[in-house]
Amino acid sequence: DFTQALHECKKSQSLGVEEDDLKNDISGGLIDYGDGYKKIKQGSCFISMIAISIVMRLLTMQDLVRQVKESKATPLLSVLLCGPKGTGKTAIAANLALESDFPFVKRISPVKFVGMSEMQKTQAIASIFDSAYKTPLSVIILDDLERLLEYVPVGPRFSNHILQALMVLINRIPPKPARVLIVATCSSARVLRDLNLADVFNVRVQVPELSKAQEVEKVLTNEDLGLKISTGEMKKIAESCPLPISIKQLLLVLEMTRVACKGAITAEEFTRRVEATGVAGGVK
Amino acid sequence: DFTQALHECKKSQSLGVEEDDLKNDISGGLIDYGDGYKKIKQGSCFISMIAISIVMRLLTMQDLVRQVKESKATPLLSVLLCGPKGTGKTAIAANLALESDFPFVKRISPVKFVGMSEMQKTQAIASIFDSAYKTPLSVIILDDLERLLEYVPVGPRFSNHILQALMVLINRIPPKPARVLIVATCSSARVLRDLNLADVFNVRVQVPELSKAQEVEKVLTNEDLGLKISTGEMKKIAESCPLPISIKQLLLVLEMTRVACKGAITAEEFTRRVEATGVAGGVK
Amino acid sequence: DFTQALHECKKSQSLGVEEDDLKNDISGGLIDYGDGYKKIKQGSCFISMIAISIVMRLLTMQDLVRQVKESKATPLLSVLLCGPKGTGKTAIAANLALESDFPFVKRISPVKFVGMSEMQKTQAIASIFDSAYKTPLSVIILDDLERLLEYVPVGPRFSNHILQALMVLINRIPPKPARVLIVATCSSARVLRDLNLADVFNVRVQVPELSKAQEVEKVLTNEDLGLKISTGEMKKIAESCPLPISIKQLLLVLEMTRVACKGAITAEEFTRRVEATGVAGGVK
Amino acid sequence: DFTQALHECKKSQSLGVEEDDLKNDISGGLIDYGDGYKKIKQGSCFISMIAISIVMRLLTMQDLVRQVKESKATPLLSVLLCGPKGTGKTAIAANLALESDFPFVKRISPVKFVGMSEMQKTQAIASIFDSAYKTPLSVIILDDLERLLEYVPVGPRFSNHILQALMVLINRIPPKPARVLIVATCSSARVLRDLNLADVFNVRVQVPELSKAQEVEKVLTNEDLGLKISTGEMKKIAESCPLPISIKQLLLVLEMTRVACKGAITAEEFTRRVEATGVAGGVK
Amino acid sequence: DFTQALHECKKSQSLGVEEDDLKNDISGGLIDYGDGYKKIKQGSCFISMIAISIVMRLLTMQDLVRQVKESKATPLLSVLLCGPKGTGKTAIAANLALESDFPFVKRISPVKFVGMSEMQKTQAIASIFDSAYKTPLSVIILDDLERLLEYVPVGPRFSNHILQALMVLINRIPPKPARVLIVATCSSARVLRDLNLADVFNVRVQVPELSKAQEVEKVLTNEDLGLKISTGEMKKIAESCPLPISIKQLLLVLEMTRVACKGAITAEEFTRRVEATGVAGGVK
Amino acid sequence: DFTQALHECKKSQSLGVEEDDLKNDISGGLIDYGDGYKKIKQGSCFISMIAISIVMRLLTMQDLVRQVKESKATPLLSVLLCGPKGTGKTAIAANLALESDFPFVKRISPVKFVGMSEMQKTQAIASIFDSAYKTPLSVIILDDLERLLEYVPVGPRFSNHILQALMVLINRIPPKPARVLIVATCSSARVLRDLNLADVFNVRVQVPELSKAQEVEKVLTNEDLGLKISTGEMKKIAESCPLPISIKQLLLVLEMTRVACKGAITAEEFTRRVEATGVAGGVK
Ligand SMILES: Nc1ncnc2c1ncn2[C@@H]1O[C@H](COP(=O)(O)OP(=O)(O)OP(=O)(O)O)[C@@H](O)[C@H]1O
Ligand SMILES: Nc1ncnc2c1ncn2[C@@H]1O[C@H](COP(=O)(O)OP(=O)(O)OP(=O)(O)O)[C@@H](O)[C@H]1O
Ligand SMILES: Nc1ncnc2c1ncn2[C@@H]1O[C@H](COP(=O)(O)OP(=O)(O)OP(=O)(O)O)[C@@H](O)[C@H]1O
Ligand SMILES: Nc1ncnc2c1ncn2[C@@H]1O[C@H](COP(=O)(O)OP(=O)(O)OP(=O)(O)O)[C@@H](O)[C@H]1O
Ligand SMILES: Nc1ncnc2c1ncn2[C@@H]1O[C@H](COP(=O)(O)OP(=O)(O)OP(=O)(O)O)[C@@H](O)[C@H]1O
Ligand SMILES: Nc1ncnc2c1ncn2[C@@H]1O[C@H](COP(=O)(O)OP(=O)(O)OP(=O)(O)O)[C@@H](O)[C@H]1O
Ligand SMILES: [Mg+2]
Ligand SMILES: [Mg+2]
Ligand SMILES: [Mg+2]
Ligand SMILES: [Mg+2]
Ligand SMILES: [Mg+2]
Ligand SMILES: [Mg+2]
Repeated sequence: DFTQALHECKKSQSLGVEEDDLKNDISGGLIDYGDGYKKIKQGSCFISMIAISIVMRLLTMQDLVRQVKESKATPLLSVLLCGPKGTGKTAIAANLALESDFPFVKRISPVKFVGMSEMQKTQAIASIFDSAYKTPLSVIILDDLERLLEYVPVGPRFSNHILQALMVLINRIPPKPARVLIVATCSSARVLRDLNLADVFNVRVQVPELSKAQEVEKVLTNEDLGLKISTGEMKKIAESCPLPISIKQLLLVLEMTRVACKGAITAEEFTRRVEATGVAGGVK
Repeated sequence: DFTQALHECKKSQSLGVEEDDLKNDISGGLIDYGDGYKKIKQGSCFISMIAISIVMRLLTMQDLVRQVKESKATPLLSVLLCGPKGTGKTAIAANLALESDFPFVKRISPVKFVGMSEMQKTQAIASIFDSAYKTPLSVIILDDLERLLEYVPVGPRFSNHILQALMVLINRIPPKPARVLIVATCSSARVLRDLNLADVFNVRVQVPELSKAQEVEKVLTNEDLGLKISTGEMKKIAESCPLPISIKQLLLVLEMTRVACKGAITAEEFTRRVEATGVAGGVK
Repeated sequence: DFTQALHECKKSQSLGVEEDDLKNDISGGLIDYGDGYKKIKQGSCFISMIAISIVMRLLTMQDLVRQVKESKATPLLSVLLCGPKGTGKTAIAANLALESDFPFVKRISPVKFVGMSEMQKTQAIASIFDSAYKTPLSVIILDDLERLLEYVPVGPRFSNHILQALMVLINRIPPKPARVLIVATCSSARVLRDLNLADVFNVRVQVPELSKAQEVEKVLTNEDLGLKISTGEMKKIAESCPLPISIKQLLLVLEMTRVACKGAITAEEFTRRVEATGVAGGVK
Repeated sequence: DFTQALHECKKSQSLGVEEDDLKNDISGGLIDYGDGYKKIKQGSCFISMIAISIVMRLLTMQDLVRQVKESKATPLLSVLLCGPKGTGKTAIAANLALESDFPFVKRISPVKFVGMSEMQKTQAIASIFDSAYKTPLSVIILDDLERLLEYVPVGPRFSNHILQALMVLINRIPPKPARVLIVATCSSARVLRDLNLADVFNVRVQVPELSKAQEVEKVLTNEDLGLKISTGEMKKIAESCPLPISIKQLLLVLEMTRVACKGAITAEEFTRRVEATGVAGGVK
Repeated sequence: DFTQALHECKKSQSLGVEEDDLKNDISGGLIDYGDGYKKIKQGSCFISMIAISIVMRLLTMQDLVRQVKESKATPLLSVLLCGPKGTGKTAIAANLALESDFPFVKRISPVKFVGMSEMQKTQAIASIFDSAYKTPLSVIILDDLERLLEYVPVGPRFSNHILQALMVLINRIPPKPARVLIVATCSSARVLRDLNLADVFNVRVQVPELSKAQEVEKVLTNEDLGLKISTGEMKKIAESCPLPISIKQLLLVLEMTRVACKGAITAEEFTRRVEATGVAGGVK
Repeated sequence: DFTQALHECKKSQSLGVEEDDLKNDISGGLIDYGDGYKKIKQGSCFISMIAISIVMRLLTMQDLVRQVKESKATPLLSVLLCGPKGTGKTAIAANLALESDFPFVKRISPVKFVGMSEMQKTQAIASIFDSAYKTPLSVIILDDLERLLEYVPVGPRFSNHILQALMVLINRIPPKPARVLIVATCSSARVLRDLNLADVFNVRVQVPELSKAQEVEKVLTNEDLGLKISTGEMKKIAESCPLPISIKQLLLVLEMTRVACKGAITAEEFTRRVEATGVAGGVK
């Protein structure tokens, strides 16, 4: 029966899972910085949420994993994570995959394709899908759609060969008894609009930037970061921080400030780093 | 004589028919959700219709099968099924093919072409037509014209090599005594307009989305789905459901709601799934 | 002498003539449906004309055959048949070729080129012209210029390689003593305008659609079709038929109505077929 | 010395001259149809002129031949003949070459390049120039620049590879002691403007169409054509003939009328042929 | 431990460092010409700054080197140096790399890629990154992004193949324990805007031209240049010098003036050289 | 030491110098036709100047040669000669190279590249630069940039592959101890603007056409041309000559007039030749 087959497959054939690789993406852990934070411990890993609305959506994502696992009527679900750069799309997708507990978990990432031709990329992608079809339950992450598609807004130029293959594969109902959950990330709304890609997915989730001083403060107080910082400075930083800012950029500036300040972190040093990284104003 | 030849061909050479593959497309059955529903049982399969106008058209489709079978003067008929995503074009085409009872039934689907070059795709398509010409009666399904043609609206880009081959093949009168019925599906009106494709077909049928609460209700009450749901909730769902909605999307949301609600389906959960799948509003 | 050489060539080298293939195009015969109809029996074949103006032009076409045959000063004549889809261009060209009685008659048709590369197509075309140059009198039909040129209006895209070869070949005066009559068909005025093609031909003929109820009626009463139909219904059909309509489309709808109506043809059924084939309104 | 070398070269190496081929282009002779006609008998050939202004220009062309022959300071002259289709550019160039009496005369014509790739065409052209550089005096005809360049106005598209080679070769001063006269013909003003080609030539000559009834009459009375035609009909034809008309087109219509009218030519038949060839109005 | 590994690596595997090559770029030394000059002697090399604001930024650059060295949380930092031609971007990057004291220092420069295909360039770039990943600490200089990308503003045209590879490689977190500092230079703001490149970098620094007479004067008085020049002439030069001017262009004009004036430099000769090099006015 | 090395190199390795080829370009000598004419005899060759401003610039050009020879701080100088067709850019560059007395002098001219592919051209160019780097002092002439780049204004189209290589090579500081002077000519301002090429050069010089009757007269009186012409006619010619006119075109028309007029040159004949060559008015 299915559960039995799943169990065995998991033991023997777990070569499909790239746990190490995926854990890399969330090596610093996921920080709780929203009002509606809900700690959903699952195994040794937890996921934090940016805002109530996202909590709802992530709930939905857990549901999607369950949906694929439990219902025969939905052998294919495809989710699109879309939002500005550095908002944590890759981390969320990696976390979802790790928690899914599926025997086949594969990330299709542009890093593995550097220098390959369009044809070679398409074949590599197709063969990962083929492997998935041979496993009862799979998660496939399509990380950074714009890079996978070699998209550049001027023109626009992109690989139509890869695009067409992806659109077919994302829509393809796997041969029985395989079931597949596809999670794609994309940081360019233009890519989706130009290429009619959003419609291809069953479910679409928007991942936002931090947009309130309150949220920045929540990050500053996070224990895992272990920042030495006085309450006064903390307030100043939270208020002077340019908004919106992505979680990734905020963490980078904080780490740079930490290294620069031998002692406690000061708002002045923080502001200098923000400027130095060109966040506010920047190169025109 | 022809009938005799047809009979023999059917027995021996039935390798052309891909019944399993086609039945996959309508594995969940076809649900009756329109006013003008007319149950046309044929073998173990039935087809439901969305609205009176469509009934007429589908009647016409049955006629087309008969036309090709019975009249020597029309050895070639080509039908275009056109409508938004998920409206059931592929299911209708598969159903028609299965019921046609023709000895050669082949679906030309982009899934089989992933990663192939334009040249290879064109040759694969041409060789399927060549096989059809060797059989007295054939149905060829050209599923998802936009994907077969590698079309993308920006540019627009597409494979002119495949397009030209298709336009010639769709118009080519088969050498005697072969007779061919071609059924193509397409979900992008722009593809048809940009590429002057609509004119290439003898018959054109528009497949609509569900656009009335009444129709949604009809789906909810369908026995085959076996949904546990109170009449009050059913009314609420039918009224709150965003319209128009495709049959495919509606069925997906319902299935997700069913799995989430251990007990009976509630309108609240239904609405949450609708939102989570990004139907209303969605990623901009 | 020339006549003698012509005679011998015709007997021995008649491999150039594709009578069967050509007769296919006018297998249903040619119907007389115009005011100015003039039955010009020639052998077992006759040609009907749509309107007085066309009669004049077709007269001219017969003249062209004679011109090439009789005058040494015009070893090359090139005719362009241009008009909407289904107006009978291919049939007229085939008929002309069959009646020409020339020893070398060849149709260059896109059907024979499916899947070939531009280079291959160009070579195939050039080699047919080379064969013609070795025969005293030849007719070459360039059927469906837009498909031969792989033209698509968006872009526009087409094969410049084939276009350039065609423009040179259509203009090339054959080496003595060969004489060539070139007949090309084209259903897209844009092709001619975009590619400056009309100027390349010596003679240009416009082939129109049926545009009067009277003409439709003439077709309905044609004996060769053998339609069972009362005079009342005939009037109704002629009046309700959407105009203009091409002869090919009209014949298709009539044949479909004939098969559907076991008994006599009714205007109601005719109208239903017209609608079902999407002529009026159609897919937008 | 030079004259001596020239003489010897002419005897032995006259393989470069293509007299037969060139004479073909003016097989029907050149007809005198202008006010300013000046019969300049030269050997067995004569050239007629369309108008006084052209006479001057053609005089200049004879001068150019002499210039290349006699002055060491101008080892390279390049002439562009430009005008509408059928005005006689190719005939004039061929005539000039034949009368030049140069040991190396070669026409580079698109007819010889059908189906060749851009690279192959460029090499063929370059090797003809190389041969010319090995002869004391050469004429090279570049016939139909727009076809040699594979130009089509939509886009526009053309072979940049051939264009660049031509621009370099037309400008290249031959290595001593070779002297070269280049004569190019072009019927599209757009080609010249788009590709900046006119500037590449030393001398530019405009070849016009017939634009006066008087000129048409002059052609009709030409003895070489040997037309049977009464003075009354001649007047009528000259007056009803659509203007401007190219000499080539006029000759074609006249020949067609001649064949059709067993007896004397009538204005009525002439007008019918003019219409039939689509000159007036034509295919839109 | 890391420090130990780093030390050993440096001794043995120092083949990665291209000191000679880098020193070439700053062979003339770096001249202090700003108000806010701060001499930061480091080893045998020093860096001068154009203005206070830049001092801050360059401070930040030293910090970046330290950041990569000292913090495990930032294994990848990427810096973009952007500014007009000749402002010293390459010199600053080379200086930074030399002072970094990292065991692997490599400059990816278009000079090494002349005549290579896109594919070959991409592979060469990727393999340099691969080498870096095998070293604990690396600096990679991407010199002249616009040339590496084969960018030209008309079109615009560029190598999308190289662009996509660069965008992935610049963002790729190196596998543990490698740490990489990437420094890129670019003199075209359009390149960054067209190709969305600025966002790819963690830190962005703007390198300006000299824009005040005062700054020009500072250069004139620099001892390293050893210019013979009276105070009066110096004032005149500083005031008449067209502004803004890049440091590279200023140094060139000064050197040309020095060679021309056997004795002391005069403002007149300086102005003549400025004009001769087409700085003011120039070719339109 | 350097001077010694230079001397030896010159004797043995002088294969790099193409004196014959270069002298061809100025075979007719250089004529003094400006107010500000300054005869700068150097060896057996002299250079004339069009106007005072140019004198200054050419002075500068001599300086550039000296600059490269004498200063170690400027191992690379690049000069752009830009002006309308026929103004003498190639002659000036060739003259400069011949007078430079450098051991390695090479002209990169489109004539040598006819029919080569982009790749081959790029490699040929790169290998000439490589040879230069092995010699102490080199002059490289890049003649006719627009042709080397295969530029055509419509599109515009050009070889980006060659362009990128040229931009890198023109900017590349030669490895010690080599020093290089690069002289490029270009007659299209659009090429420079479209491709951002002007900025790539250190020095830019504009070469003008003759724009005054006075200048034309100066040419007419030049002894080297040895024209037989009365003072009255000379005045007439100078006044009627269309202006501006390039030196090359003027010399051509004069030579054609000289050959036509057996005796003394007349203004009437001159005017006729000017018209015949299409200078005034021309082909539109
Ligand atoms: N609550 C959180 N949600 C997401 N990421 C978080 C959270 N807390 C901390 N992080 C960290 O923020 C970083 C987000 O970076 P990530 O690469 O996932 O962003 P991204 O949206 O994929 O960026 P890009 O658009 O550049 O691909 C990760 O290092 C992750 O560990
Ligand atoms: N009456 C019906 N008509 C059509 N499909 C129905 C009907 N009832 C239920 N269905 C189901 O709805 C689904 C329609 O999906 P299908 O793939 O055929 O749509 P589509 O129009 O081809 O979509 P796409 O544009 O994405 O190709 C099928 O699963 C089919 O079984
Ligand atoms: N008088 C007629 N003239 C032309 N065709 C006729 C006539 N009467 C009957 N026909 C029939 O009409 C049909 C015309 O179709 P045909 O393929 O020649 O049209 P077409 O203009 O070539 O179409 P397309 O533009 O699609 O190539 C033929 O089957 C022909 O036998
Ligand atoms: N006076 C004349 N000048 C030129 N051609 C003449 C003259 N008299 C008669 N002819 C005839 O007219 C015809 C002109 O055709 P030709 O092919 O030379 O024109 P063209 O300008 O080259 O046309 P295209 O633009 O199509 O190449 C030739 O057959 C030539 O013999
Ligand atoms: N303070 C300074 N900062 C930068 N460069 C300086 C400074 N002082 C002197 N220089 C010299 O100025 C020159 C700057 O040239 P460099 O090639 O680095 O400029 P660039 O911005 O890279 O130019 P490009 O945009 O053409 O690549 C170098 O020769 C460098 O030695
Ligand atoms: N003072 C002069 N300056 C330049 N050229 C002169 C001068 N006097 C005479 N000449 C002659 O003028 C001609 C100029 O032609 P050249 O090919 O150098 O022009 P160009 O600008 O390179 O033309 P193009 O733009 O077509 O390449 C040469 O033959 C040269 O000998
Ligand atoms: Mg990501
Ligand atoms: Mg479908
Ligand atoms: Mg046809
Ligand atoms: Mg011609
Ligand atoms: Mg630089
Ligand atoms: Mg030149």
